[in-house]
Amino acid sequence: MSGSEFDIIAKHFRPLTGEDTGALSLQDDAALLSVPPSRELVVTTDAVVAGVHFLDSLSPEDVAYKVVGVNLSDLAAMGAEPQAVFLAAQFPKDLSEDWIAAFAGGLKAALAPSGAKLLGGDTVSTPGPVALSLTALGQIARGRALRRAGAKPGDIVFVTGAIGDGALGLLLLQSGIDGLSDAHRAHLARRYARPEPRWKFAMALAQSGLVTAAIDISDGLVADVGHICTASGVEAVIEAEQVPVSEAGHHALVADPGLLQSVLSGGDDYELAFTAPEDAVADIENLAEQQDLDVAAIGRIETPGKLEISPGTGPVIVLDTHGAPLDVGAGGYQHL
Amino acid sequence: MSGSEFDIIAKHFRPLTGEDTGALSLQDDAALLSVPPSRELVVTTDAVVAGVHFLDSLSPEDVAYKVVGVNLSDLAAMGAEPQAVFLAAQFPKDLSEDWIAAFAGGLKAALAPSGAKLLGGDTVSTPGPVALSLTALGQIARGRALRRAGAKPGDIVFVTGAIGDGALGLLLLQSGIDGLSDAHRAHLARRYARPEPRWKFAMALAQSGLVTAAIDISDGLVADVGHICTASGVEAVIEAEQVPVSEAGHHALVADPGLLQSVLSGGDDYELAFTAPEDAVADIENLAEQQDLDVAAIGRIETPGKLEISPGTGPVIVLDTHGAPLDVGAGGYQHL
Repeated sequence: MSGSEFDIIAKHFRPLTGEDTGALSLQDDAALLSVPPSRELVVTTDAVVAGVHFLDSLSPEDVAYKVVGVNLSDLAAMGAEPQAVFLAAQFPKDLSEDWIAAFAGGLKAALAPSGAKLLGGDTVSTPGPVALSLTALGQIARGRALRRAGAKPGDIVFVTGAIGDGALGLLLLQSGIDGLSDAHRAHLARRYARPEPRWKFAMALAQSGLVTAAIDISDGLVADVGHICTASGVEAVIEAEQVPVSEAGHHALVADPGLLQSVLSGGDDYELAFTAPEDAVADIENLAEQQDLDVAAIGRIETPGKLEISPGTGPVIVLDTHGAPLDVGAGGYQHL
Repeated sequence: MSGSEFDIIAKHFRPLTGEDTGALSLQDDAALLSVPPSRELVVTTDAVVAGVHFLDSLSPEDVAYKVVGVNLSDLAAMGAEPQAVFLAAQFPKDLSEDWIAAFAGGLKAALAPSGAKLLGGDTVSTPGPVALSLTALGQIARGRALRRAGAKPGDIVFVTGAIGDGALGLLLLQSGIDGLSDAHRAHLARRYARPEPRWKFAMALAQSGLVTAAIDISDGLVADVGHICTASGVEAVIEAEQVPVSEAGHHALVADPGLLQSVLSGGDDYELAFTAPEDAVADIENLAEQQDLDVAAIGRIETPGKLEISPGTGPVIVLDTHGAPLDVGAGGYQHL
């Protein structure tokens, strides 16, 4: 990291506070925040390490979108409104100031849609790779937070957007995928590099009171629906053909049907998976339509023991078009 | 890091939540916190990297004390009561689970005096060194936070405890110091490895309304009093002989008077420096006595331009016993 920590902060990160008075211009030791009495604070921390959680080939702007996306997606999983982030950045000594400037620019752009401000942090040098820990704070009406626990037998399992783009984008950047146009390649690469966390739709879901359980899809669809099941003490069946894929994802699957496993079990989608009773389907579809977002019903929650799940494969079963169980691997995202 | 992230969290870190319901057993994507309407939230983030911010020779317990101390000291600088911490831990792949278990044990012990709970975090593997980012949340009565800005000409400059033990402890562990008994060596090493952040006294100071500016001494006494001066638009004079040193520090200085520069400019003390009007001295001494803590008046705030400060040396001057300015170097802690 060239330049002193003080200079780097003053030049590149202070402008990101948006002159929020709570940031105290990043000149004090900590930031001040208020939380209205009717609201609760939602707090999450995630770390990403170059070469572990993201490809070294990502641009500094992409890295910023990635670390913001990962964290705001965790807020989305709870239905919270993003309010502030704190960044602990570890930069190698030889990292250029241009990289840091571009990263700070990406951070500003990635935070802008949500209105969340950078209110503090720490910038240090490391002999290791670039590593970024972000703590995100959000707010939600008291008692309204979405949780993993709460899914009930008979509930429908929903997902937002398209599933698998994150894993396919990673695969594309690592080793290429056949049968894709330039536009499809660009779509998947962008979806991998710049996730769009669904905090806005999640806020509407939390407000609606319709949802029984929710999570963001970071470990992979099957693993994350599995997390809901474990926390809720239930099992789930997913119908593979109901899982929404993008046009680019569709073409990738046509060229290589074996990629279905990556779609179902890969990570980095940062879409939402959530459950709700069957009589809430129309209302949920309305909420999604108001935000011009796709939601899809992909399966159902079941009483434990009712599904024929092979021992040791977790609480989620995925069925193919013939109703036969698919082998989706161990499930759960293994980073790079 | 041996074992999966899920196993590591469940086994070593979940017990540290103290069954705080807001942690949601570390099983959701984020934690929930409430802040009473009469209080503000104080938030700080600090990262420490092995070999950069602490010696590789530190025990895992010491490392935990270090990262907790650094962060709770930032809360202390604002006068806040520690409430919760979030840990983003980067562990090398080959790090033993014993190390992680000992670190988690140290984390629990280091948090215990303050009552702050571990409410969440992230545990990831890294090809680099052990790196730990902690975000600490505290609370303070609305409008009562101590700030760096606010010191006024005529104010007295105070410090808590003893100054220089952190820098001397580091020096001792790196290259040894002559003329010290085993007990003195143990004292300095412990003061370096296990800082005792002054959040309890800082809470009393904030409550008292006596203090005009405050900071914790992490960059070094001269640099940190300089930060108060810069934020407050003032200058300061410190009398070297008034700066309190421990018995171990005294013996080190007798053996090598040149170590005075380390005492005045080294970092890692995690004591408080603060300013207050002269008529508050007795009340401040009373507050300290109630907590069985030493405070010392070490200097005075002056109107800018009144002191004969050499160009380019910052807003703080240190005088020796003859009233002559001491050369304390550039000031400001350079890590390791």
